[in-house]
Amino acid sequence: MRNLRVSADRIAADLAALAGITDPDRPWTRRAFSPRFDQGRAWLRSRFAEAGLSVATDAGGNLLGTRAGSAGVGTILIGSHSDTVPDGGRFDGVAGVVIALEVARMLEERGLTLRHDLCVADFLAEEVSVFGVSCIGSRAMAGVRPETWLALEHEGRSLAQALRDVGGAPEASARRDDIRAFFELHIEQGPVLEQSRTDLGLVTAIAGITRVEVVLTGRADHAGTAPMGARADALAAAARLVTAIEAEATARSRTGHFTATVGEFSIEPNAANVVPSRARLLIDARAVERAQMEGFLTWLDAACAALPPGIGATVTRLSDNMPTPMDPGLIALLQTAADTCGATTRPMASGAGHDAAFIARIAPAAMIFVPCREGRSHCPEEWAETADIALGAEVMAEAILAFDART
Amino acid sequence: MRNLRVSADRIAADLAALAGITDPDRPWTRRAFSPRFDQGRAWLRSRFAEAGLSVATDAGGNLLGTRAGSAGVGTILIGSHSDTVPDGGRFDGVAGVVIALEVARMLEERGLTLRHDLCVADFLAEEVSVFGVSCIGSRAMAGVRPETWLALEHEGRSLAQALRDVGGAPEASARRDDIRAFFELHIEQGPVLEQSRTDLGLVTAIAGITRVEVVLTGRADHAGTAPMGARADALAAAARLVTAIEAEATARSRTGHFTATVGEFSIEPNAANVVPSRARLLIDARAVERAQMEGFLTWLDAACAALPPGIGATVTRLSDNMPTPMDPGLIALLQTAADTCGATTRPMASGAGHDAAFIARIAPAAMIFVPCREGRSHCPEEWAETADIALGAEVMAEAILAFDART
Repeated sequence: MRNLRVSADRIAADLAALAGITDPDRPWTRRAFSPRFDQGRAWLRSRFAEAGLSVATDAGGNLLGTRAGSAGVGTILIGSHSDTVPDGGRFDGVAGVVIALEVARMLEERGLTLRHDLCVADFLAEEVSVFGVSCIGSRAMAGVRPETWLALEHEGRSLAQALRDVGGAPEASARRDDIRAFFELHIEQGPVLEQSRTDLGLVTAIAGITRVEVVLTGRADHAGTAPMGARADALAAAARLVTAIEAEATARSRTGHFTATVGEFSIEPNAANVVPSRARLLIDARAVERAQMEGFLTWLDAACAALPPGIGATVTRLSDNMPTPMDPGLIALLQTAADTCGATTRPMASGAGHDAAFIARIAPAAMIFVPCREGRSHCPEEWAETADIALGAEVMAEAILAFDART
Repeated sequence: MRNLRVSADRIAADLAALAGITDPDRPWTRRAFSPRFDQGRAWLRSRFAEAGLSVATDAGGNLLGTRAGSAGVGTILIGSHSDTVPDGGRFDGVAGVVIALEVARMLEERGLTLRHDLCVADFLAEEVSVFGVSCIGSRAMAGVRPETWLALEHEGRSLAQALRDVGGAPEASARRDDIRAFFELHIEQGPVLEQSRTDLGLVTAIAGITRVEVVLTGRADHAGTAPMGARADALAAAARLVTAIEAEATARSRTGHFTATVGEFSIEPNAANVVPSRARLLIDARAVERAQMEGFLTWLDAACAALPPGIGATVTRLSDNMPTPMDPGLIALLQTAADTCGATTRPMASGAGHDAAFIARIAPAAMIFVPCREGRSHCPEEWAETADIALGAEVMAEAILAFDART
C-alpha cells in the first residue's frame, strides 16, 4: 500500500459495517425506503457526525454532511448512494459514500479547512426503487425530479409519504445553486480496468440511454401443417432482428462506447405446436455520442421497415435520454492528481447511469471509476479491492484540494 | 354440385347443429370432458340412432354407432372426433364424424347392407385435453393408452373418473382386433389443396413428431457496462440458433414433408438492463421419413455443440414419435374411388397428428383431406366448403363399397 493520507483501514471497516446492514436472507440488500435502508442511514448519520460534519436530510431525501469552508465561495459536493438493488453488491454506490466520508474525516484529522464548504452526500434511491424509478435524490437536487412521481404508490404508500419518512419534504425544492464542483467515485461495473490493469478510470461521459420497444406481428399457424416456405413466423423474424442488432451495435462500439441489448423478449402464443404470431423486443441502447445513437435509431427503423412480407413491425421509443459529458476542467484536475499519486488512469465512458448525470445539470461534475472483479456488479459476487478504492479516494482528495486552492 | 349419393344438405345441417353446441362466449369450443361435450355427444347419439345404428360407448370412451354386416368378416371403421380446442373451429374432427354418419345414413336410406360391420366412431379427446394429453380414445382402441394416464388429474377429477363420466370403463381393455379397414376424413389444416386447386388430398403418411428442448446458458451482465465483444449473451446465441433451425428445416422440406418450429421461447432474467443469461427453446419437428428426422436431430446436436465460447447448451428430447405410413391398398382404393367420382387428388403427408395414427397400429388405415380456407385451423375462422366435404364423403363411401366387395 502506498503512503496515503486517507485511511484504507477505515474505508475497509466502513464498507464491512454497511455490508452488515443487509436483509439477512438475501445479502446484499438494502433497498431505498426499507427499514434496512433507514438503519444504514442511521449508521451513516453517526459516522458523519463523528467526522465533524453537520448532518441534515435535504428536501429531496438526500443525507448530507457538511464541513463549513472559510471563504463563502460555494460548495464542493462529493458522494454517491447507499441503497442497493435486491441481491446486490457491497460496493456499488456504497464505495462512493464511504470514501466521501473518509475524505472529510482526513481533512478533520489534519485540521485542514477548505475555502469551499465540503458536502458529503448519500443520494436517495439511485437504484430503481420499489416505486419503479431511480436517482430520486440527485434528480431532486438538480431540480428535475418529475412532479408526477410524488403520486407513485407502492404497497399503499405514496412516494411523497416515503420521502417524508426518510426526512425529506416532497413539496419543497431541493435544487441547489451553490455547487461549484461534484466528484463521485464508483466501481466500474465492467471489465475494462481489470483487464487493462489500470488503477483508475476517469469518466469522460455518462452514456445516454434510449429504450425502444419493437413488436413484430406475423401469423399463427399449425406447426405441423403450415409448410416452411408459407409461414409468417414472428419469432424467426425477431431472431434475425436480434442478430442484426448485435452486429450493428458491435460495429458501432468500435468507434466509441456503444451498446445495444435486447434484455426483454417474449413471444405469443408461446405454444409448442403453433407458429409464433407475435414477438416483443425491448432494446436498451447506450451511447456517449448522440450521433451514434441517432445513427443506430435510423438503422433500426430501416431494419424494421425491411422485414419479410407478412411480418409487421411497430417501433416505439419508450425513453430517450441524452449523454452527459463530464467537466473537462475537473477531469484535468483528477488527471493531475492521479499523476501526483502515481495512479495509472484511462479515460472511459460510463455505460451505466449515475447520480453524477443529474448533478452535472447544476454543476461541473466528474467521476472516478475503480476496478471491480470480472466486471461483476448488481450481484452478491461484486468485489473491489480496498487498495483500489483507497487510491481513488486519495486522488479525489488531491483534486479537491487543488480545486479549492485554484478557484 | 355433382349428383352424389351422400347428401350435402344433411352434412351442412349436421355441421351447423354441432357448431351450435359451443360455449357461447367463445365459439367454437366443445372441449372433451366438459358438459358441452356431453351435450354434443347426446346430440350425436340421437342422430346415430336415427340412422339405424346401434349406439354404444366403448371402454375407451369412444362413441360408436354400428350397422351390422351380413358376412361376419370383421368391421370397417370410419370416423374422427367431435371435441375441439378452446376457441377452435367448426370442422376439425367434426367434419369426419358428420360424414361418417352420413355414409351410414346413405346406406340405410338405400337399403344397402355391407358384408362387413360398419362402425361410425367419435373418438374421445383427440385434441390436447384438460388432462394435458391427446388421442385418448383412439389410443385406447389401439391398446396403447398409457396405464399411468388414468391417474392424471384436472380440478380434482382423475382421468379414470372422467372416462367413467363419459360412459367408458377405464379398467377394461378397449382394444379391437376386428377392424379390417379404417377411413378418416379431415380438413387439411394447411394451404396446399386450396393453393393447388385440388379437390382432395390422399394422405400417404402421418408425420412423426419429435419435441426437443434446448436450454442455452450465457452470463448475465450489466447492459450498459459490458462491452459488446465481451458478452456471453444467451439470447443472441439463441437467435442464431432459431435462424439456423428455420434454414435447416426449410432445406429438408424440399425433399419431403418436414417442419421444425420453435413454438415456445423464453429468456432470463428478462430485464431491460441485463444481458440475458438463459434462453429456452422448445422445438417441434415433424417428418414423414424417419431418416429426415434423424438427420435433423444429428444436425441440431452438432449446431448446439458449435456455439460460441461462453455459451452452454443442453439438448433434451422430450418426446419422439415415429411417422405412420397409411395403407397403400386403401390409398389405391381411395384413388380409384376419386377417379370414379371425378375428384382431383394429390398425395400428401399429414403434418398434424390424427386418430388414424393410432388406429393404424391395429388395422390398415387411410385418410382423405379436404381443403380449408387459407389453411387456417384451431381458430374461429376455420372454414371448409360443404361441397368439398360432401365430395370427400362420396369418395369414402365409394371406397368402402369397393373394399367391402373385394374382400
